[in-house]
Amino acid sequence: MADISRLSINQITVRDWNLEQAAAGLARHGIGGIGLWVDKVEEAGLPRTVELLREHDLAVSSICRAGFFTGEGAGGKVSADNERAIEIAHTVGADCLYMVCGALGADNDLPGARRQALEGLAAMAPLAEQAGVALALEPLHPSMTADRCVVVTLDQALDMLDEIGSPSLGVAVDSYNVWWDPRLEAAIERAGQRVISYQVCDWLVPQPHPTFGRGIPGDGVIDFASMTSAVGRTGYAGPIEVEIFNEDIWSRDPDDVLDAVVASFSIV
Amino acid sequence: MADISRLSINQITVRDWNLEQAAAGLARHGIGGIGLWVDKVEEAGLPRTVELLREHDLAVSSICRAGFFTGEGAGGKVSADNERAIEIAHTVGADCLYMVCGALGADNDLPGARRQALEGLAAMAPLAEQAGVALALEPLHPSMTADRCVVVTLDQALDMLDEIGSPSLGVAVDSYNVWWDPRLEAAIERAGQRVISYQVCDWLVPQPHPTFGRGIPGDGVIDFASMTSAVGRTGYAGPIEVEIFNEDIWSRDPDDVLDAVVASFSIV
Repeated sequence: MADISRLSINQITVRDWNLEQAAAGLARHGIGGIGLWVDKVEEAGLPRTVELLREHDLAVSSICRAGFFTGEGAGGKVSADNERAIEIAHTVGADCLYMVCGALGADNDLPGARRQALEGLAAMAPLAEQAGVALALEPLHPSMTADRCVVVTLDQALDMLDEIGSPSLGVAVDSYNVWWDPRLEAAIERAGQRVISYQVCDWLVPQPHPTFGRGIPGDGVIDFASMTSAVGRTGYAGPIEVEIFNEDIWSRDPDDVLDAVVASFSIV
Repeated sequence: MADISRLSINQITVRDWNLEQAAAGLARHGIGGIGLWVDKVEEAGLPRTVELLREHDLAVSSICRAGFFTGEGAGGKVSADNERAIEIAHTVGADCLYMVCGALGADNDLPGARRQALEGLAAMAPLAEQAGVALALEPLHPSMTADRCVVVTLDQALDMLDEIGSPSLGVAVDSYNVWWDPRLEAAIERAGQRVISYQVCDWLVPQPHPTFGRGIPGDGVIDFASMTSAVGRTGYAGPIEVEIFNEDIWSRDPDDVLDAVVASFSIV
């Protein structure tokens, strides 16, 4: 049972709010942490973002997101978007920058795409290190292997970290993406202090949509108590970020969504 | 590139045909193997099933399916349905009986459901051994953990086999369920001669439906050449069963579907 002071809200959960609205809205609900999206930051402007965070006393638990190393033209160079994401993460003092590795390429070469992801991440790590930004490598659920991310388990992410060997790299545990894994507890233990971010949302049954059908904790089948315990045993005591992609949630008043998230947080 | 003589058709691929129609249909297309479903066998009657198989010179690559060991009331006893499935597999001389372990229970206790699956399988193994029936434990895709099957990787299935230690047990490699796994080749190598069945269908992008949106090989993103190679290196040289759950495929004339499957089989 996590303390409410650890609650952070990923901006996508209140998607229809711009950053001004989100910052004010979270503060109004007594929430002290926010996970920012790059496009929303750019829309508000980086200087205004910094002001808003200060004004509403918000800590930034993460920046979503950089990466996308796979596909044609990927060659271990750091893209302008990825450089900019590091700059944003540094400027707002984010706990970490989420790394999503990208989809399978048009050649359907899965091992090849995984090599590209490794090379891209290895090229980005020194820049992050220099900027003092922690990169949180996020395995996505295997149902997204083809169209979103070829990194799909914590063990796979940790193998990549082992190979790259940069102190700027850690892993993100996102309940929706990893809850099914028979190696979940073992992989979290293996990660140890490399767990640098913890995101939660629930797996609904039936699934309304493979990507945009995530639920508020308690509305689905995930056993958060066990997962939060396992994450806690690594020493991670930072923010717990609620990140919900769900068309139904997005159609509701964001204030009502935040009420529901706050009310359910005790089960996390 | 697999030889067409290895092609077997799982009955679900031609779902709208009863067993009489399926047996005649497969023979008409020069296909020598069939994967039978228990409900279709019961509908035709077991004696008539045996006659039809003989009449059309069909070998049975698998029986789908038994298992479902999880949930309330599961207690390591062998259900009447599971006993009957063994009897059917024995009577028709099936290469194997598919084992699907079952869904997460209402208590959302995933490790608990996995223990139930292990106990149920362990209880069933001696009966299968006695009947000379091979049980093919099938990991399903992690997107089906909650509502269909708590066994989701080949490694997990192999760990269960190691623990039970019965010669009647093997694993089934189903392309749709395992293609995403970073440990796929390693796990197939680990399985070795315990790979006793190989089913194929493709992963479509975008996915029309998480369960009923599988594709004919070649219509999606799976690299069959690599997978078939890996399976071949274990020594497995038996049937390759095409099993497609797809509402769109089911709405077509099954003869057209079989034409398409035969035409695409060379890429498997």
